[in-house]
Amino acid sequence: MIVILKQNAEQNEVNALLKQLEDMGFDHHYSKGENSTIVGIIGDTSTLDTDDLKTIDVVADVKRVSEPFKLANRKFHPDSSIFNIAGRTVGESHFSVIAGPCSVETIPQMTETAEAVKKSGASFLRGGAFKPRTSPYSFQGLHDEGLKILLEAKKATGLPIVTEIMNQAHLDLFEDVDIIQVGARNMQNFELLKELGKCNKPILLKRGLSSTIEEWVMSAEYIMAGGNEQVIFCERGIRTYETFTRNTLDLSAIPALKSISHLPVIVDPSHATGLPWMVESLTKAAIAVGADGIMIEVHNNPKKALCDGAQSLTPQQFDNVMQTVKKRVEFEGKILG
Amino acid sequence: MIVILKQNAEQNEVNALLKQLEDMGFDHHYSKGENSTIVGIIGDTSTLDTDDLKTIDVVADVKRVSEPFKLANRKFHPDSSIFNIAGRTVGESHFSVIAGPCSVETIPQMTETAEAVKKSGASFLRGGAFKPRTSPYSFQGLHDEGLKILLEAKKATGLPIVTEIMNQAHLDLFEDVDIIQVGARNMQNFELLKELGKCNKPILLKRGLSSTIEEWVMSAEYIMAGGNEQVIFCERGIRTYETFTRNTLDLSAIPALKSISHLPVIVDPSHATGLPWMVESLTKAAIAVGADGIMIEVHNNPKKALCDGAQSLTPQQFDNVMQTVKKRVEFEGKILG
Amino acid sequence: MIVILKQNAEQNEVNALLKQLEDMGFDHHYSKGENSTIVGIIGDTSTLDTDDLKTIDVVADVKRVSEPFKLANRKFHPDSSIFNIAGRTVGESHFSVIAGPCSVETIPQMTETAEAVKKSGASFLRGGAFKPRTSPYSFQGLHDEGLKILLEAKKATGLPIVTEIMNQAHLDLFEDVDIIQVGARNMQNFELLKELGKCNKPILLKRGLSSTIEEWVMSAEYIMAGGNEQVIFCERGIRTYETFTRNTLDLSAIPALKSISHLPVIVDPSHATGLPWMVESLTKAAIAVGADGIMIEVHNNPKKALCDGAQSLTPQQFDNVMQTVKKRVEFEGKILG
Amino acid sequence: MIVILKQNAEQNEVNALLKQLEDMGFDHHYSKGENSTIVGIIGDTSTLDTDDLKTIDVVADVKRVSEPFKLANRKFHPDSSIFNIAGRTVGESHFSVIAGPCSVETIPQMTETAEAVKKSGASFLRGGAFKPRTSPYSFQGLHDEGLKILLEAKKATGLPIVTEIMNQAHLDLFEDVDIIQVGARNMQNFELLKELGKCNKPILLKRGLSSTIEEWVMSAEYIMAGGNEQVIFCERGIRTYETFTRNTLDLSAIPALKSISHLPVIVDPSHATGLPWMVESLTKAAIAVGADGIMIEVHNNPKKALCDGAQSLTPQQFDNVMQTVKKRVEFEGKILG
Repeated sequence: MIVILKQNAEQNEVNALLKQLEDMGFDHHYSKGENSTIVGIIGDTSTLDTDDLKTIDVVADVKRVSEPFKLANRKFHPDSSIFNIAGRTVGESHFSVIAGPCSVETIPQMTETAEAVKKSGASFLRGGAFKPRTSPYSFQGLHDEGLKILLEAKKATGLPIVTEIMNQAHLDLFEDVDIIQVGARNMQNFELLKELGKCNKPILLKRGLSSTIEEWVMSAEYIMAGGNEQVIFCERGIRTYETFTRNTLDLSAIPALKSISHLPVIVDPSHATGLPWMVESLTKAAIAVGADGIMIEVHNNPKKALCDGAQSLTPQQFDNVMQTVKKRVEFEGKILG
Repeated sequence: MIVILKQNAEQNEVNALLKQLEDMGFDHHYSKGENSTIVGIIGDTSTLDTDDLKTIDVVADVKRVSEPFKLANRKFHPDSSIFNIAGRTVGESHFSVIAGPCSVETIPQMTETAEAVKKSGASFLRGGAFKPRTSPYSFQGLHDEGLKILLEAKKATGLPIVTEIMNQAHLDLFEDVDIIQVGARNMQNFELLKELGKCNKPILLKRGLSSTIEEWVMSAEYIMAGGNEQVIFCERGIRTYETFTRNTLDLSAIPALKSISHLPVIVDPSHATGLPWMVESLTKAAIAVGADGIMIEVHNNPKKALCDGAQSLTPQQFDNVMQTVKKRVEFEGKILG
Repeated sequence: MIVILKQNAEQNEVNALLKQLEDMGFDHHYSKGENSTIVGIIGDTSTLDTDDLKTIDVVADVKRVSEPFKLANRKFHPDSSIFNIAGRTVGESHFSVIAGPCSVETIPQMTETAEAVKKSGASFLRGGAFKPRTSPYSFQGLHDEGLKILLEAKKATGLPIVTEIMNQAHLDLFEDVDIIQVGARNMQNFELLKELGKCNKPILLKRGLSSTIEEWVMSAEYIMAGGNEQVIFCERGIRTYETFTRNTLDLSAIPALKSISHLPVIVDPSHATGLPWMVESLTKAAIAVGADGIMIEVHNNPKKALCDGAQSLTPQQFDNVMQTVKKRVEFEGKILG
Repeated sequence: MIVILKQNAEQNEVNALLKQLEDMGFDHHYSKGENSTIVGIIGDTSTLDTDDLKTIDVVADVKRVSEPFKLANRKFHPDSSIFNIAGRTVGESHFSVIAGPCSVETIPQMTETAEAVKKSGASFLRGGAFKPRTSPYSFQGLHDEGLKILLEAKKATGLPIVTEIMNQAHLDLFEDVDIIQVGARNMQNFELLKELGKCNKPILLKRGLSSTIEEWVMSAEYIMAGGNEQVIFCERGIRTYETFTRNTLDLSAIPALKSISHLPVIVDPSHATGLPWMVESLTKAAIAVGADGIMIEVHNNPKKALCDGAQSLTPQQFDNVMQTVKKRVEFEGKILG
């Protein structure tokens, strides 16, 4: 970490800063120039906050040379993480397909959809029992009833399930869930992240609507700092000025994450675009760019879906997408599922 | 609400849609043109979700004519809301000043700052006991110990207190807090909002980092739908591409909110810019644009602040700002405090 | 186009509006409901400006049902456009590779780079003679001297050339250029676009830094309206809050453009990210998502490049990228070059 | 300027870099630490491009300590610039009001509007003869005919005029124009900026739709570098995700510009919001935040305006706004006009 001092900094104040750094256990490298004076802080600076340092009167600016995260950092964990989840492998040479409806509605809806997506080659079944909705008057999900239906579908098909948590107080209900999803709006719900850090379940961490890649990794670090190292990133589009698509899918985030972190990352083209006819194209791009999987919304009867049906594929459309997924995953030298 | 049908919509499917609307209790107005067919939905459409409607196969697009919120809507509550909070009045002809440090640190820090801001004319004391931090390794606040210190400062000065909640499970600890703040990262933590809807405390609802004005009002609606109608908006800057300021303060949001909602709105120039030298200019602008108050970070010793000290004013700087605030609030024909 | 009237619109004013539409040659469909009254405008509304209509006192809102562009619209030109440029085919089943340095510097630099990229399989040579630079003090290109060097390299290798125009007064100098590039900062330089509409050269139209897809197509429409129908889109990243990459490459724009327009679209991963190590991943994604080509920065000696060298590949790195490009273009059933 | 070297940089390459800097006339300060090595470049670094430096193989990152602009920089010109334009004073203790329609349409329209805004206290008359429009099919202005009408209105009222240029080839037509406006879409049309740098007219430089404050100042620097030091900034809103207002007015930009530059800055609330009912509130805020003036759209008959009428005030509405402007400008201790 590099601290740039103000040009008019008084020596006794500078000395006080150096002393303070020493007291915190840091070594430092002091270099006084004509126009600017610089202090290099040596040691593990991931616990230092650049904003806190800017506080200090003689400091003009602070610049990180190394990243503020450790457990999620590829530097300290050069091999890509691979997770074994309910018999499926996520990460590295595997490509995972999570499919299912936005909301859990009924047993036949879930079971039919689950059977269809399984047949087409999906590795995981998704479905929301707790639904974050902008309006308090919109359907909010079936809650524990929805989780039960999801478990029925799991039992019927053997597909491991992925579902969203919105409240740490509900954690007990998620005991038989295979992957717990954290939604975009909760990516910086730090109290929730801390609780998830204590549980022993893989977490699918969606990117916040306007979160930087670094903030996203820091949220993974929250979970990992609690002891749970099974975090999977999910890119689902960021908020920009463009309105053609609901969000702007940031596929650069995949090589970016791969370069700085060892954790797997999957792509959600359904939520990113809100346009079912774009799902296939962006799925192809996600596979090519190096994602470890995709999450696609599928509903056995999208016309009747209670929530986000507009962006769901029918089982037949999903099956068509999976035909190209299979060929492309093979082309990349990866294993599907 | 206006539903635009697809050009090739089959009549029996259209009839099914009209029937469905009738079953939901809506009247409709059907108008078939050469190029497009339109259905106007008549009734209280705030419970309808435009995305759900887009689900239906024959629907090409959906356009709201009226807003999706009711309790926060000025249409149904033409007078501006005024709240009496611990003997202070917030809203309409009153201008409130909330001041204090980012984080509660020690009893002397809080008491000294509280006495200073009170003397300068602040109406409320702020201070964070639970701090949302991007890094799990940064200082997270003193928690219940911090709330105790805050209550000490309240006792010493008589200033009502404003402090942030991050977890609905902590609500009991906030019993003696006068205004509960919801931070930007929790603006769409719907589980938290629902719990706050059940409590009988004024809520200061910060705007999410990339929330639209409508989404923000919908979050207020969540709290109000639970029975708690005391919501105060706090504009704190939105995330844009500009990096000169930490966020981009959106002062247009104040007249925007005033036109569609009856709830008070205050401005936080300290967090919006991250630059203490900009606070005075933007405070002047906030008063002129019609805000009902400001929230300013003040620390008795910013150089030593543990968190966000870089953006805090000293008590002396705050006193200078308050000199101009007093004159300007009077110029606007409002009452300070 | 649908015009929503104000609830309290007086009948004589509404009649005046209907009369005005008739005078402009439009048919209309009037539908009065209890809560809202709607006028559907029938005819070719691409010449109508929604903002102009909002001007009219009785109008509450205006909503397009059809797009405001004609010549670039796939509706009126269902087949994808294919351009024959200096013996190369751009569009449909062909995949084009444009490669070369950011700036033209010297004859050896251009000739060496041109020979290298030709050998690796590039279809076109790029190089900037006129360089848009944020600072007036930065290197602005070699101008006509640069164009001459570029033509030397063309002569030496036979590669058709692509280079940027910044000023319509320079058009004469571009006589032997094969594709004229319009840079992001000039995408809405309408005077330049109009002049390019009169010339008989293919135009590579880069997306503006914060242009919507619709605005981008409207800029193509400007060129086409002048008589020049050879427009190729170039997605080069949009400006967002994310700073990991220089811009955010919007790959959703490719299927979006393909659905609404018949014009070819290529992708520039070098400028989009500013990170040479990301070029290969995003090139793979661009091929998979359906782009008609890519533009990649290559410099025979990036360390010595005068401009944007930081994002250039070496000829060796480019050759490696081309190995995978060849396999992938074949996988997509397309022809390289 | 601070250059951070790569950890594994070889000494001979570092020496080559130091030599290169010396050859360019820069002094340097070299400081080798355990974790990182830093080179401080001493001298006028405004001519150095950080991106060019990042090109060099041993360089990990580059950080500016001083700004890349000189002529527009307050550091080298501590007093605020004051311009005398056709007998009016712009800058410092003066507050300028520019008013008039978006487009010049007819002599009576311009003369009536000019007389009305003059009576209400405007200092300058605006009106567009060359109109940048997204669609090639929209009204593009009356061109030289429009300039003649504008000059008629100037003659009739004595008000100096402000109008937009879109093409450097038109410069001759602007001989009797008092302030030449550069629109947002041309803020980085560097060829136009260079030509304006050679003319002896004040330039009103609108901020680009997604330009940073630094890029904006660099565009002013382009004009000034050509010899024309009369540049006035005009903040007109930036493009964000928020759709309530057409753009997001960035009032923080005013204190930001005031701190780094000596040039005057005015605010355009009409274009920023697109909502005439917001103009008064934001005008009040602009005065309070320290702007040197405002630009407001006024049309004698907004309902019939050909372009952007939707955002124009009537002369009566403008007169009402001017009542409060007068009181507030006086309150700030400034002189109107």
